[in-house]
Amino acid sequence: MELQLTKIGQLLSGRSGIVELMDDLGAALAGGGTSKMLMLGGGNPAHLPEMQEVWRRRLAEIVADVPLCDRMLANYDGPAGNPRFRESVAACLRETYGWEVGPENIAVTNGGQTAFFFLFTLLAGEMSDGSRRKILLPIAPEYIGYADQGLCEGTFTSHRPRIDKQSDHLFKYRIDFDSLEVGEEIAAICVSRPTNPTGNVLTDEEMSHLAQLAEERQIPFLVDNAYGEPFPGAVFEPISPTWNSGMVLTFSLSKLGLPGTRTGIVLASEEIASRIRSMTGVVGLANNNIGQTIVEPLLASGEAVRLSREVIRPFYESKSRAAQAVVAEQFGEDFPYLVHRSEGAFFLWLWFPELPITTRELYERLKKRGVLIVPGEPFFFGLSEPWPHARQCIRLTFSQSEETVAQGIEILADELRHLHR
Amino acid sequence: MELQLTKIGQLLSGRSGIVELMDDLGAALAGGGTSKMLMLGGGNPAHLPEMQEVWRRRLAEIVADVPLCDRMLANYDGPAGNPRFRESVAACLRETYGWEVGPENIAVTNGGQTAFFFLFTLLAGEMSDGSRRKILLPIAPEYIGYADQGLCEGTFTSHRPRIDKQSDHLFKYRIDFDSLEVGEEIAAICVSRPTNPTGNVLTDEEMSHLAQLAEERQIPFLVDNAYGEPFPGAVFEPISPTWNSGMVLTFSLSKLGLPGTRTGIVLASEEIASRIRSMTGVVGLANNNIGQTIVEPLLASGEAVRLSREVIRPFYESKSRAAQAVVAEQFGEDFPYLVHRSEGAFFLWLWFPELPITTRELYERLKKRGVLIVPGEPFFFGLSEPWPHARQCIRLTFSQSEETVAQGIEILADELRHLHR
Repeated sequence: MELQLTKIGQLLSGRSGIVELMDDLGAALAGGGTSKMLMLGGGNPAHLPEMQEVWRRRLAEIVADVPLCDRMLANYDGPAGNPRFRESVAACLRETYGWEVGPENIAVTNGGQTAFFFLFTLLAGEMSDGSRRKILLPIAPEYIGYADQGLCEGTFTSHRPRIDKQSDHLFKYRIDFDSLEVGEEIAAICVSRPTNPTGNVLTDEEMSHLAQLAEERQIPFLVDNAYGEPFPGAVFEPISPTWNSGMVLTFSLSKLGLPGTRTGIVLASEEIASRIRSMTGVVGLANNNIGQTIVEPLLASGEAVRLSREVIRPFYESKSRAAQAVVAEQFGEDFPYLVHRSEGAFFLWLWFPELPITTRELYERLKKRGVLIVPGEPFFFGLSEPWPHARQCIRLTFSQSEETVAQGIEILADELRHLHR
Repeated sequence: MELQLTKIGQLLSGRSGIVELMDDLGAALAGGGTSKMLMLGGGNPAHLPEMQEVWRRRLAEIVADVPLCDRMLANYDGPAGNPRFRESVAACLRETYGWEVGPENIAVTNGGQTAFFFLFTLLAGEMSDGSRRKILLPIAPEYIGYADQGLCEGTFTSHRPRIDKQSDHLFKYRIDFDSLEVGEEIAAICVSRPTNPTGNVLTDEEMSHLAQLAEERQIPFLVDNAYGEPFPGAVFEPISPTWNSGMVLTFSLSKLGLPGTRTGIVLASEEIASRIRSMTGVVGLANNNIGQTIVEPLLASGEAVRLSREVIRPFYESKSRAAQAVVAEQFGEDFPYLVHRSEGAFFLWLWFPELPITTRELYERLKKRGVLIVPGEPFFFGLSEPWPHARQCIRLTFSQSEETVAQGIEILADELRHLHR
């Protein structure tokens, strides 16, 4: 049988950067660490002993609480998520930031990525009047997982950043507001903060400027806070998060250490939260309950925020420093490389301005040598014209063990020196 | 801010039968049984003590197995699902039915409903050549959860069944093959078996006839096996399930007793399984791991099939008989009602041929009296013309306690006698 596919079906089920990435990650991780691949790709959080202990303790508490365990496994929740969990998320945000939010502003999704699929589907594409609207990504590179989520071609329009060279081997992307126009065809502005893949944390000034542009145009400002504050808090610079009803802020339990539970959280106006809830019901009846049940009391008690500040942030900050030190040591002063300033998330973003091959080829070469990295090209989707820089960057995760990261970077440096010879 | 929505966004986030149903169910269940509502709506499985015990034992085993627990909670699986789980599902089907299937034929989704969202999105809607294709439901009423899953208007075209009156108060729907045409615009044929909402189990002859029609037209035949064999096995008639590569068969862990884990399973040709995997990656990165981890060894050992045959099926069959007895007793010989022959699933489907109001109104009246039922109208989507019968049927679940079911039916009968006066 030759399968006839719809246009949208072709888009959503074809070759995809994120699917290749997850296939690689799944293959490397499913064996439970028995794979010999050095995993510098993927975004799997580290297994922090202190956090793993918290999860196992919570799961043991749940097993011991028969009615709670039965409810968690054997009951459907409403499509917005568990009412108690939603209240505890809202309470956590009220207490941490003083935001005026309640459970009516919260919708749970099966992971943060699904939240964006729903938001993009709601806002970007064909409108009732036949016009088309797009998502504006004010800065590329941006999260690879968005790239294939559009239900029509050209869902995203993205912009080159300014490159701020801070020293010989250090740079930071900054939004180029001079060239940023928010036309009538823009449905929403979207950023991840900290940015996946670069570890950039947009400044509070950049954020308020974007919020203002969105407000002027009366469109939502979507902020992917998967690595952000107050949990998991993988942010290494002081920031002052804000929210208002024109913003949609998403959270995730994945980077707190529970990616296997697929739990995303949307904070939005009541209307958007309610529409996300409807989409959850239509697409998949309800969310899974496990992540919510595990984490709810930790949100209610403030423990999740404390663990983020005292355990998770210091851990990743120290991992980042260690990885940067290995990079500096392995590449040396004279090799043509730059690292994006590491301000958050789990990644180093490396730029090789004289790279003689594409990073896709580099990815294949390194895979053969037992190192998985993520090539940079797919993160530069939505640009109106080609940009050589887009073929010169790679993403490395520093969340694996320091030995793994060090060995991986050593092989990477060796491969690159061969290529540059 | 006045929110501008896309066409598809409006469809997926508007008022929806399934969302109302899940809201009602969530509100009634989230309190953990403290609600006084008699829950004859929804499709939540019963909490069978023997099954709850199995789940708690498995979770305790997982908590005790530190590496397994850490993997389950803290690792992303590949988007197709856990490799070991997929192999165990395939092995279970090979051993039970002798089907030639391997893990490459299996894709896991976040619940069975999501599997259908992906399948419908792949197959029905706008094609590359601009033509539109539809899903053929050969028998209405059909599962309410499909109704809003189309990404364009008119995704479904459904057909009235023949009504086979088997006695004064008993009937069975049969596919009306005489009026069933499978035109060029049909992308796939789809049925649920056992049927939600009616408890109908299409006969083996009806199934092979449908499979033959699909094969002639070279289109997939989608079978929603959420309540079917070999697990959870809520089928009260002897049947001989079949599968071939032109068929897509979906399974679910929900009706086995784990709806809170949102675990669906697609058995299909390698191409379709692989496309479902891609869609999982694009829409939500990966599946949650918990249901797969809990059930995998039970599939591998044959225990899941044994429990389905020895615990789950007898339980629901006896629940069905008890509910039918209460209906017969409460309505009496002379009241104008019929029950669909209860051949599987968790529901009785009642037909009141002289009902003076719509069943939506009946639903509202009963909700006020503390009984939740599901009105029948929304299950008759996709018909080309109105059908009075569609306003005369309701769905009752018999999965709650016998007291709840008996009290609910008593109030229902009382309300109906008032209405018929």
